[in-house]
Amino acid sequence: MPLETTAIDSRPEVQEFLTRSRALVDHELDARVPAESVEPVAVHSAIRWSLFAGGKRFRPALVLAVGETLGASTAELLSAACILEMIHTYSLIHDDLPSMDDDDLRRGRATCHVRFGEAIAILAGDALQTLAFQTIAEDESLSAATRVRLISEVARAAGVPAGMVAGQAHDLAAEARAASGADLEKIHLQKTGALIVAAARCGAIIAGAGDQELDLVSEYALQLGLLFQITDDLLDVTASAADLGKTPGKDARAKKATYPAVYGIEATRQRAVTVHAKASETLTQLDRPTMLLQSIADFILRRNA
Amino acid sequence: MPLETTAIDSRPEVQEFLTRSRALVDHELDARVPAESVEPVAVHSAIRWSLFAGGKRFRPALVLAVGETLGASTAELLSAACILEMIHTYSLIHDDLPSMDDDDLRRGRATCHVRFGEAIAILAGDALQTLAFQTIAEDESLSAATRVRLISEVARAAGVPAGMVAGQAHDLAAEARAASGADLEKIHLQKTGALIVAAARCGAIIAGAGDQELDLVSEYALQLGLLFQITDDLLDVTASAADLGKTPGKDARAKKATYPAVYGIEATRQRAVTVHAKASETLTQLDRPTMLLQSIADFILRRNA
Repeated sequence: MPLETTAIDSRPEVQEFLTRSRALVDHELDARVPAESVEPVAVHSAIRWSLFAGGKRFRPALVLAVGETLGASTAELLSAACILEMIHTYSLIHDDLPSMDDDDLRRGRATCHVRFGEAIAILAGDALQTLAFQTIAEDESLSAATRVRLISEVARAAGVPAGMVAGQAHDLAAEARAASGADLEKIHLQKTGALIVAAARCGAIIAGAGDQELDLVSEYALQLGLLFQITDDLLDVTASAADLGKTPGKDARAKKATYPAVYGIEATRQRAVTVHAKASETLTQLDRPTMLLQSIADFILRRNA
Repeated sequence: MPLETTAIDSRPEVQEFLTRSRALVDHELDARVPAESVEPVAVHSAIRWSLFAGGKRFRPALVLAVGETLGASTAELLSAACILEMIHTYSLIHDDLPSMDDDDLRRGRATCHVRFGEAIAILAGDALQTLAFQTIAEDESLSAATRVRLISEVARAAGVPAGMVAGQAHDLAAEARAASGADLEKIHLQKTGALIVAAARCGAIIAGAGDQELDLVSEYALQLGLLFQITDDLLDVTASAADLGKTPGKDARAKKATYPAVYGIEATRQRAVTVHAKASETLTQLDRPTMLLQSIADFILRRNA
């Protein structure tokens, strides 16, 4: 049903899904993270400062969307959804540090180290990573076999040699030279792509997907992650600080490798359309009701924040 | 057999055990960590710089000693032994950072951030933590049920609210004021004690120990961890830089909460003897051949590096 699934009016539905998904995930995260009143107060306050800063919850939404599309219950999917957000937020806290990207503003508020100091920000990121793996290891609604598989997926996507930390290292190295299109693709596939693919795969694994579906879902998420990054780069050059919740134009000033910097704005817009088409094409091969997944791709293509 | 187990000649045996254990663990760690030639080269080099800096491998040795005492095979214990060292080393890399303890020398060589820069040191610590959880999740010599239990144990010992990161946060806070004996105990139980207890518990869990043995082993490790910390603090005021591989007297200058600073040197020595006696007493309740575990306690009491 390609005509129906790419219909313009899918947007209200996806908004509703994202709003519901965000509320569920926020509630679950709140239950998993020690309260601010618990010692050590500074670390717990710092974790909550960054975790509840109004993030889009894109990765958890993808866990839920893929998992539910493939037949898993929301309850089974929630802890995996949470740990993806914990890993993402830990990486934001560390990436914002002065020795890394040196960002003062994130999701519309002071970054963790600006608010709590560098030492506490480092510890908050460390503890959040630990809590992610603890949360999935202790989720008794999933079999132990599923839990270790999820931990392996998330760890490979988060670490080295080909996950998020590797991508951040390549990104830092690329700032020192003029980044090429090939640099850019490699950085994004690792720095943001790997975790987005892991989110989709975790949803599919919990739903008991076979290898073929897992491959299709991974390919869809790979394109979705690229689309997310391309639109992020575009917004950095075209949107206002109020829309973004962070300093616009920052990437260009920092000589960050971005799509507009390498290809120019028009070619970058065209690339977004092409990548969106690839994601849609992948979905047509999935013998499932793919309306929600298609709507998410449409939503990202058109997003303005 | 308390007379026999506390005999002075136990020392050559424990040296031999520690040497064998270190060689096994080093070999296994080398196989688990990406080579320096693998991209991102800087992160892998930084991980290896800190991981293969001649550490004592005390935590892995404890996994092996407790596990073997309780009937597990060395092969089953090795990945748990490795991940305890990975978690310990990640924490050293981050604790040494300028915004934390600001140490230039560790295990006789430049600290990770001095050698590779702060950004890469932060990423190396992050990746090493991730690799620890990945390693245990993917160890097919253990059942999935055992793997998730080990991950839960290690995560609780490493994180917040009562593990290693919590201890480091309390330690940083204590530097700002005069630390009391109660501060000191709380800091050490969390900062180093929790992971040492987890090492012993992981060994026991892999061996299939019941709750009673697990309790005894935890109590033994708790005392062993305190003994390790007390002797560490003593060495900081009495040993030379060549013996220590780090700057002696540094703790006192940094106004770190240490046993000699709070109790004085003689009372601290007496405390070491008392804690050693408690560890030995706990071992007499364990219906197993405890010679090796006793020798380890004796060795730590008398260590000079």
